[in-house]
Amino acid sequence: MHAILDADYLCHLGFIRDGAPVVLPTLYARVAERLYMHGSAGSRPLRCAGEDTGIAVCLTVTHVDGLVLARSAIHHAINYRSVVVHGVARQVTDPAERSTALNALINHIVPGRAADSRPANAKELAATAVVALDLNEVSAKVRTGDPNDDPEDLALPHWTGVLPVQRTYGTPVPAGDLDPSVTVPGYLTQR
Amino acid sequence: MHAILDADYLCHLGFIRDGAPVVLPTLYARVAERLYMHGSAGSRPLRCAGEDTGIAVCLTVTHVDGLVLARSAIHHAINYRSVVVHGVARQVTDPAERSTALNALINHIVPGRAADSRPANAKELAATAVVALDLNEVSAKVRTGDPNDDPEDLALPHWTGVLPVQRTYGTPVPAGDLDPSVTVPGYLTQR
Repeated sequence: MHAILDADYLCHLGFIRDGAPVVLPTLYARVAERLYMHGSAGSRPLRCAGEDTGIAVCLTVTHVDGLVLARSAIHHAINYRSVVVHGVARQVTDPAERSTALNALINHIVPGRAADSRPANAKELAATAVVALDLNEVSAKVRTGDPNDDPEDLALPHWTGVLPVQRTYGTPVPAGDLDPSVTVPGYLTQR
Repeated sequence: MHAILDADYLCHLGFIRDGAPVVLPTLYARVAERLYMHGSAGSRPLRCAGEDTGIAVCLTVTHVDGLVLARSAIHHAINYRSVVVHGVARQVTDPAERSTALNALINHIVPGRAADSRPANAKELAATAVVALDLNEVSAKVRTGDPNDDPEDLALPHWTGVLPVQRTYGTPVPAGDLDPSVTVPGYLTQR
């Protein structure tokens, strides 16, 4: 489950707002048995996470690894790895843990980047809420391999197999206001 | 919003189960102003969608387009496109609409594939629930472009820009039981 969580940085976070389900794309990072998220201190779910009760959430991460083409329509599928975490998210108030979490959030997306950027100042920190979700109630589902066609379909003339899918990274594009003498850091080109 | 929805086939579907939020990765397809999902007729959310009231859901689709590296830690971000749909999902019972939906679900993932596979038979159809969600309450969020560093940070020495991210497809891998004389169809190699 750690490996699945560590292979991505975007989760879909579900919570209940006014009695209705809400699912929002959210960045996250794992530190030991705890996930961290962050955002504007004024945003709704993060505010709720700051209350005594915290906020009940479901955090889901899914990697698509392949399109599974069976001979029969019904057996088409996706090869994937997913993790679902249920629990109560709570705001982190301890300054040291907040700092750890914010560095982890950057390094989880681009390893090595936290040390190569200006750290948040006091004003920025005050405007940022950090939320923790412990990895207590966690489940994983994985599908790999070939399609599972029924025996009576094996002689059908349709091509069958898997089309691999992956997330790939392109060539870094410098910002328009970057001094051209600043070179692309190794932690980006090695990706 | 149609373009964002049509550029993916996996959503994260949120609903409430026993008072707690649940988010599950789910395949979907769009037909006009309606999204379709399918699954085992016995699964919990699909069963609830078959009741008179349907089931309240939040369906979210997110494409990650780039990692945005600012000079300051706090302005790091993701370029992305997301759509959030709120509404009530209901089971589809009309046979013609169910057939349209199931073909759309396959063709949405691999255009042209529905016609090149064995259609579902009566037994398979009976075991499959099709659920519809109308595109009435829909919102989109998109971030593009450069980092937004503060003016006082522009002279910092850190590289800044965007690392492009995309989903790519590999070479089709034939199933182990595929007759080697069956060639890869054009709708896969042109992807």
